Amino acid sequence: MRYQLFYWPGIQGRGEFVRLALEDAGAAYDDVARGKGGMDKMLAMMRGAGEKKPPFAPPFLKAGKLTIAQVANILFYLGPRLNLAPKDEGQRLWLNALQLTVTDFVKEIHDTHHPVAAGLYYEDQKPEAKRYAEGFLGERVPKYLGYFEQVIDESGGPYLLGRKISYTDLSLFQLVEGLRYAFPKGMKRIERRIPEVVAVRDRVAQRPGIRAYLNSERRIAFNEDGIFRRYPELDR
Amino acid sequence: MRYQLFYWPGIQGRGEFVRLALEDAGAAYDDVARGKGGMDKMLAMMRGAGEKKPPFAPPFLKAGKLTIAQVANILFYLGPRLNLAPKDEGQRLWLNALQLTVTDFVKEIHDTHHPVAAGLYYEDQKPEAKRYAEGFLGERVPKYLGYFEQVIDESGGPYLLGRKISYTDLSLFQLVEGLRYAFPKGMKRIERRIPEVVAVRDRVAQRPGIRAYLNSERRIAFNEDGIFRRYPELDR
Repeated sequence: MRYQLFYWPGIQGRGEFVRLALEDAGAAYDDVARGKGGMDKMLAMMRGAGEKKPPFAPPFLKAGKLTIAQVANILFYLGPRLNLAPKDEGQRLWLNALQLTVTDFVKEIHDTHHPVAAGLYYEDQKPEAKRYAEGFLGERVPKYLGYFEQVIDESGGPYLLGRKISYTDLSLFQLVEGLRYAFPKGMKRIERRIPEVVAVRDRVAQRPGIRAYLNSERRIAFNEDGIFRRYPELDR
Repeated sequence: MRYQLFYWPGIQGRGEFVRLALEDAGAAYDDVARGKGGMDKMLAMMRGAGEKKPPFAPPFLKAGKLTIAQVANILFYLGPRLNLAPKDEGQRLWLNALQLTVTDFVKEIHDTHHPVAAGLYYEDQKPEAKRYAEGFLGERVPKYLGYFEQVIDESGGPYLLGRKISYTDLSLFQLVEGLRYAFPKGMKRIERRIPEVVAVRDRVAQRPGIRAYLNSERRIAFNEDGIFRRYPELDR
């Protein structure tokens, strides 16, 4: 099956969590909105043109006749098919709970630069962002990453589910990469307390599919239009 | 199967989306943290005592040997078992995407009174909350509820999936109830444009399980500790 991924071109954003799974598995896919006429196609689908089930927002994935929206939902679908998730129902639900915790975290990361409104520029909410980022680095990042550290510990490691890698480990890689980009100072301090999470990041970076992807032009560089933005005034 | 629901006592909060499904179906369940010693039990599970798979946060559900966290994940599990979801994979994924859009919306609703930090009091972030609430009522509520209106239209109605009710319709009921409580002025204006969503709310309210629940002491009243809070200065 050749998949079609729909996501904003020019940023890693939420689409990256899906890309990493597809790339790790060597799956065949088109990153539609980055191709010619792709943006128009994506926007038309969101308007509901010819879609009985219009997605609320990108990313969404076309897989045969299915159109699947929401990152955790896409990964839930892809996981067993890409050999990045167990097949047992209880294990899949546990993995989905972990991925939904990633989703919650990603929203909080986004809000470091957009605490007041997604529709306003960062420049219009800088004082609020500064206040937000304090609690974010002081409380939230240690809480989320500390939780994943605990999960790896409990599983026996080296991955979240134990000996076998899953799509949420790939997401954990992306979280560490993105947070290092956006908050180099804060992360330097925090990483001391999450060695298992950092080890997952390192293992993922060495996987052949991921390594090839990171060295390719398909990997968009981090930038200040995405989820993870480097605004030094928010880092400490 | 008798289920055990774990959620903060004293508020509807995110737990309410699970309660509504259990109550509508007449399922047997304990609302553990509202019973004697229940809070200690819940907190111990979150600390990881005797849990190889500790939940990040309430609500979570114990179903036999499984412990399932995250509202959308719990409902994904319960849906077919409570006859509140289709069994077909494609349909279940579509419903899950809708429920995850509810999840995103609930977080934005929460942030109307906590835009800077969940760990601070509302009183410590009132100016930011006021700015946030403007864009929320002006842009976000119409966008989310307008999307659900579109989905009902496309399905042929009267429910999100068409003729058969699903757990996300129960969540839609809760969204309308909560938003009416928190933003009576704003909602009066917005509701004119979402007649199908309001009709779902009315249909759900008339279901025997829901009606009995709403009239029981099991239904906690809306209050200013929950997700939906009535702060008149945020409504317009």
